[in-house]
Amino acid sequence: MADFPHTVAELGEGELLSRIFPRLGGPRMLLGPGDDAAVVAAPDGRSVLSIDTLVQDQDFRLQWPGGYRTTGYDVGWKCAAQNLSDINAMGAVATSLAVSLTLPGETPVSWIEGLADGLSAALRALGAENCTVAGGDLGRGNQLVVTAAVTGDLQEQNPVLRSGALPGDVLAVCGGLGQAAAGLALLESSLPYAELGSRERSLTAAQSRPCPPLAAGPAAAAAGAHAMMDISDGLVRDAGRLGKASGVRIDLDPEALRAEAEPLAGPAATLGADPMSWVLGGGEDHGLLAAFAPGQKLPRGFRRVGTARAPGDGVRVVTVAGAEPAFVGWDHFGG
Amino acid sequence: MADFPHTVAELGEGELLSRIFPRLGGPRMLLGPGDDAAVVAAPDGRSVLSIDTLVQDQDFRLQWPGGYRTTGYDVGWKCAAQNLSDINAMGAVATSLAVSLTLPGETPVSWIEGLADGLSAALRALGAENCTVAGGDLGRGNQLVVTAAVTGDLQEQNPVLRSGALPGDVLAVCGGLGQAAAGLALLESSLPYAELGSRERSLTAAQSRPCPPLAAGPAAAAAGAHAMMDISDGLVRDAGRLGKASGVRIDLDPEALRAEAEPLAGPAATLGADPMSWVLGGGEDHGLLAAFAPGQKLPRGFRRVGTARAPGDGVRVVTVAGAEPAFVGWDHFGG
Repeated sequence: MADFPHTVAELGEGELLSRIFPRLGGPRMLLGPGDDAAVVAAPDGRSVLSIDTLVQDQDFRLQWPGGYRTTGYDVGWKCAAQNLSDINAMGAVATSLAVSLTLPGETPVSWIEGLADGLSAALRALGAENCTVAGGDLGRGNQLVVTAAVTGDLQEQNPVLRSGALPGDVLAVCGGLGQAAAGLALLESSLPYAELGSRERSLTAAQSRPCPPLAAGPAAAAAGAHAMMDISDGLVRDAGRLGKASGVRIDLDPEALRAEAEPLAGPAATLGADPMSWVLGGGEDHGLLAAFAPGQKLPRGFRRVGTARAPGDGVRVVTVAGAEPAFVGWDHFGG
Repeated sequence: MADFPHTVAELGEGELLSRIFPRLGGPRMLLGPGDDAAVVAAPDGRSVLSIDTLVQDQDFRLQWPGGYRTTGYDVGWKCAAQNLSDINAMGAVATSLAVSLTLPGETPVSWIEGLADGLSAALRALGAENCTVAGGDLGRGNQLVVTAAVTGDLQEQNPVLRSGALPGDVLAVCGGLGQAAAGLALLESSLPYAELGSRERSLTAAQSRPCPPLAAGPAAAAAGAHAMMDISDGLVRDAGRLGKASGVRIDLDPEALRAEAEPLAGPAATLGADPMSWVLGGGEDHGLLAAFAPGQKLPRGFRRVGTARAPGDGVRVVTVAGAEPAFVGWDHFGG
């Protein structure tokens, strides 16, 4: 073993865990990391559960064409954010994360310490103050794979499902729309990261360290949202899932979409891209899409983007002013 | 797209999920797969949570030297078994699994269907009849990585921790000890799998499809076990963790160890191995190690293997008749 281990292969599992645990902090759990399993409070007798994975070279690149290097902090943050978003989308608040890390032996120890810091920072910064890292698992592999499972508490409310939208409902979004995709396009371009302006950098940050609007999920549930989900694979694809689950057609409003695209016009022009492709097809913003009764005052942060209609011919689940959308979204297997 | 898709790359994500969900079955949950998160009952107001990962070429080989091919069914079974074991080790019963699959594009669809079948079969066969697959995540990667998170219900009992063993306690094991390691050695050897006898095949099955004794965890908790954990990285390494957490030395009984090694003598002789290396150092049996008050009648299936002692010099946490053990166990990073 080296005197000063720089890679995870130079540390034992116990030593690596001892570098991670002190960085996690957070509120006390009934039983935290260090035993075979953790014990998390489930005060209303139900526990919400989801799982999500980030894979190197699929969900992030360690080194992007323009020079940006993804930090462990970025990946820890994004891992927390995308999992918290799934709990948010049910109208619940997150109570714990369990994290499994699959690491190549040459992974720098400092990168993993950064990952623990990023997890912890995201929980605080995003307002998940009741959520702690409850435990995890460590193992080797030939690429970085970071999986977290997250539990949540419904606080005596009913979960908001994808299947409750009714014809006539207002469809609204909360949080970013197309920003993470714009950031991805910037990172994937050959534009030198070091020369990007602050506006462009805020878009790459939306990709690397997304900020799901965590207060908005429980607020929408309390306001009586009929249906809700998080937007992780693009507005059209995710609205299609909500529409299919609810048995409605989602008709998006071109005017509202133009208002969403407008702030992205500058970077889109730089890259020769259509900002509408990011608004309609861009994933990973982890905002919310929700359906509210017509006339219902929208909770803070929600913007109307369309209307639920009777299914019609049933072929097209998502339309823009009645016509086929110009862009679809992301499918992990591209089928 | 091919007319008859044979690999996951030829299917879309939705189509792949539609192949998986119908195979899962199990008891009804409050809210099952298909939304952003599942909702699991937590009747006593607490939820036990753990996470565990299997990585191709680390935790299993798709093709072993003697010719055995690991099936999706094997990996699904093992994924369920090792996660259920963590819940068992707390004295709880499993209530749900959330499964994340990272798949190379060329993975055969039939392999993934087998994985879903194996998950489901393990839940039934191991007696986890209250546990269902609650949801999951799918993504691409360059090797197979299968992660599951598991929740459990303590049924109004206190969780049994690693830290409760007292000097004088009897240390006992339940379930296999060294069998999975013997199976691993057989699979790693050049002995043709097709020519192995039924006894050897039962050892390779202990490696590929372990059977944690799921009734024994809650029974040990009900019997007042002072401390408990599952044996996943070998008796010496795991007893060391229990001893360290409890502040005791664990002295193993050579006679009891010999009784555990004796049934492994035949395959060990075939391979030129020492069966004691499997008993002391072999992981992945997912049996239980527990500490009971002296004089306590051991619950069904538990065998005495040693005694907890006052810590002594504090250097050696695990001894065999007071001396250093000849074999240690498994560390994922080998530090």
